[in-house]
Amino acid sequence: MTENRERVVVVGAGLAGSLAALYLARRGYQVDVYERRPDPRSALASPEGRSINLGLSARGMRALDEVGLLADVLKRSVPMRGRVVHAPDGTVRFQPYGVREHEILHSVLREELISVVVDAAEAEPAVRFHFGHRLVRLDRDTATVEVVPTDGGEPVRVHADLVVGADGVFSTVRQQMQHGLRADYAQEFLPWGYKELTIPVGADGEPRVRLEALHVWPGHEALMVAHPNVDGSLTCSLFMAHEGPVSFAALDTPQAVRDFFDRHFPDAGDLMPALVDEMAAHPVGHLVTVRTAPWRHADRVVLVGDAAHAVYPFYGQGMNSSFEDCLVLDSCLAAHPDRTAALAAYEAARKPHTDVLADLSTANFADLRDRVHRIGYTASATADRILARLLPGRWVPLYAMVSHTTTPYADALARARRQDRILRTAGAGLALAATLAVAATVRAGRRRSTGR
Amino acid sequence: MTENRERVVVVGAGLAGSLAALYLARRGYQVDVYERRPDPRSALASPEGRSINLGLSARGMRALDEVGLLADVLKRSVPMRGRVVHAPDGTVRFQPYGVREHEILHSVLREELISVVVDAAEAEPAVRFHFGHRLVRLDRDTATVEVVPTDGGEPVRVHADLVVGADGVFSTVRQQMQHGLRADYAQEFLPWGYKELTIPVGADGEPRVRLEALHVWPGHEALMVAHPNVDGSLTCSLFMAHEGPVSFAALDTPQAVRDFFDRHFPDAGDLMPALVDEMAAHPVGHLVTVRTAPWRHADRVVLVGDAAHAVYPFYGQGMNSSFEDCLVLDSCLAAHPDRTAALAAYEAARKPHTDVLADLSTANFADLRDRVHRIGYTASATADRILARLLPGRWVPLYAMVSHTTTPYADALARARRQDRILRTAGAGLALAATLAVAATVRAGRRRSTGR
Repeated sequence: MTENRERVVVVGAGLAGSLAALYLARRGYQVDVYERRPDPRSALASPEGRSINLGLSARGMRALDEVGLLADVLKRSVPMRGRVVHAPDGTVRFQPYGVREHEILHSVLREELISVVVDAAEAEPAVRFHFGHRLVRLDRDTATVEVVPTDGGEPVRVHADLVVGADGVFSTVRQQMQHGLRADYAQEFLPWGYKELTIPVGADGEPRVRLEALHVWPGHEALMVAHPNVDGSLTCSLFMAHEGPVSFAALDTPQAVRDFFDRHFPDAGDLMPALVDEMAAHPVGHLVTVRTAPWRHADRVVLVGDAAHAVYPFYGQGMNSSFEDCLVLDSCLAAHPDRTAALAAYEAARKPHTDVLADLSTANFADLRDRVHRIGYTASATADRILARLLPGRWVPLYAMVSHTTTPYADALARARRQDRILRTAGAGLALAATLAVAATVRAGRRRSTGR
Repeated sequence: MTENRERVVVVGAGLAGSLAALYLARRGYQVDVYERRPDPRSALASPEGRSINLGLSARGMRALDEVGLLADVLKRSVPMRGRVVHAPDGTVRFQPYGVREHEILHSVLREELISVVVDAAEAEPAVRFHFGHRLVRLDRDTATVEVVPTDGGEPVRVHADLVVGADGVFSTVRQQMQHGLRADYAQEFLPWGYKELTIPVGADGEPRVRLEALHVWPGHEALMVAHPNVDGSLTCSLFMAHEGPVSFAALDTPQAVRDFFDRHFPDAGDLMPALVDEMAAHPVGHLVTVRTAPWRHADRVVLVGDAAHAVYPFYGQGMNSSFEDCLVLDSCLAAHPDRTAALAAYEAARKPHTDVLADLSTANFADLRDRVHRIGYTASATADRILARLLPGRWVPLYAMVSHTTTPYADALARARRQDRILRTAGAGLALAATLAVAATVRAGRRRSTGR
């Protein structure tokens, strides 16, 4: 029976590629997944010991739930009910993520998450994973790929009906699919990079900080976030400029590292016994936004995940939106028997929204850096939350729409802008009413005092 | 003596590369120019007989003048004193380009212009041209290039002190210079393309239309411009969508071509006896904007022309801004003995302005397509011209600043915006004054009629 199935080659066995393979197998395709790196479940996968933590929210949960993986993933996650914002003087403030019980995020290690997805995909008889295979060529018109084993074996040509490019931000599938065509492409690097650091459990085996939250140290020159882990430790991502007076490049001695943390994150530095060693040993990651079109070629090639739309991590939506791609692609394949039409519908359904996500993620960087600890920001966020409580389902803050619903990103933004206009108008009305009331009081006072 | 000169490899012998070679030789470098195509002065250069016409304006003229080429180029050009705008009903309207004698453009064939520049560069003892050599590799740290003769000879490695990437919009130098670095890059294609067509001289040997002007046929679905040639013919560029109901793809029969011209450009079609043949034989060109950074690597590599900033042709500034690059690069090399500092100064002096040029060129497409024949556009352009006449040198319309001055593009745009604000405020003031005057007249009339 599998002889008659249409064949898909998925390039890339990251989060997007593995979940796409699972969806496509359930949709009836025979799926081969080629991945340059070793099996992510092996010890080889993360030689430098980096651990990346992700915040799973509604979109990602929905896509996992559809293929029955959500419960398993949640078992390996820590709920985050809000943000703990750390000020430089050591004071902390808790901001809940939502107003309802389910409006929370779930912190999960990338390697745990990918193990669940790869295990599930591999359990499908129609899926085969080929780790340690690098794509060198794609013939977009015949959906033929040439892959080379990274251990030095002979190149292999594989013919398929459809190639799925899930090979990340610098996608070879994308490059070869678009080569020589009128393709729009934009990549933009943030002058800031990031580095992973650890807050381990205390000597008593207990967590050192409040666990069920995302911790944020906002800052103009450097900022940090920390996700809780199941074992009670936290994984921190430190963000700052690559170069310049305050930058990763400038932190080139143990003393410079300690001075920097004392000045910017004194409460965090005290909780990181391996800080100096980790700063020296861990690589600095790049932050890049990619927007492009087309995402597809005829009925032969399609992109998912970072290959189609890389975003900065500041809205916590990179993985969630990649998982959502898989769900939307699958529903388009279900709705359109003609695959060219299905891939066109998929791009039309996704690209306007992931472009908005790129904008939101850039804006959230500015917020985390400059605005989170300002009074105006807090007041506006509080007003949003109060209105959401008073008008359940009818007033939804932008953050809640992005994180706790599956409303498409652009629709969420449009609705948030309408709400903002109402708030501004109401604010102006209130200010006017207050002014009139004060004026009336003053007049009444004058009348009394003059005896009129 | 030439033994001690520093060596430059220029990749690309187009307009930017040839002029850069000339400037660099005069600055004291030994220059080797490698160009993939045959010598542009040979019959091989333009096998399909395409002829492209360019509008030389102040920036290009200044850069040519600096190296003594302007007089020679102007001898081969036709002055254009303004635009002749053709309406679909056949009526024409002349809009002068400027208010002063020198505020004109000069139409010149690309192959004439490049012959002048290549001849002049080749006359320098320090310059050698190597046509038919394709760049395959650049080592950005050692300024070493590997070139392959296109006739199948052996690859050649050439070591230099500086590599100038003048290899156009899809620059290999840029790609290899930026590879793996945090480079910003954006390419955007217009859904429209273009095709060259000819209005030959009449049977009597006389020009068929007014010669000393750029002819424009604006239009929402398709538009055309025509540059005059020295021999009395005109070279037209037809712009329209690649695909769709009104598009190059849809003009697939002689009848479709004739019907299309009858409907959109009836007066032009009548002047083009070879129209149907040319539409079938000439290729459709692509229109692309490229913005990128960095433009340089250490003291080793630098980009000029389309390799650094490709723009749509609708402001007629592509060649002019590329020539201006050569002038600015040369003045930065003169001002900074340290070449790393010189290249940094060059990028800082140019990139903000060519980014603005990209915006202006995109906006001018919308103007040509949608606004040129509207009353509001004409009125505003007329007001601008009247003010420029009344306040010579103190009020300069944006088009005049871009085309008739060397004011950097972003500075020109900022000044135009200030002027626009003044016009709008004045317009509002005038409208208010007029309203008050009318109201006063009406009141006076009422008073009279009621006898008060």
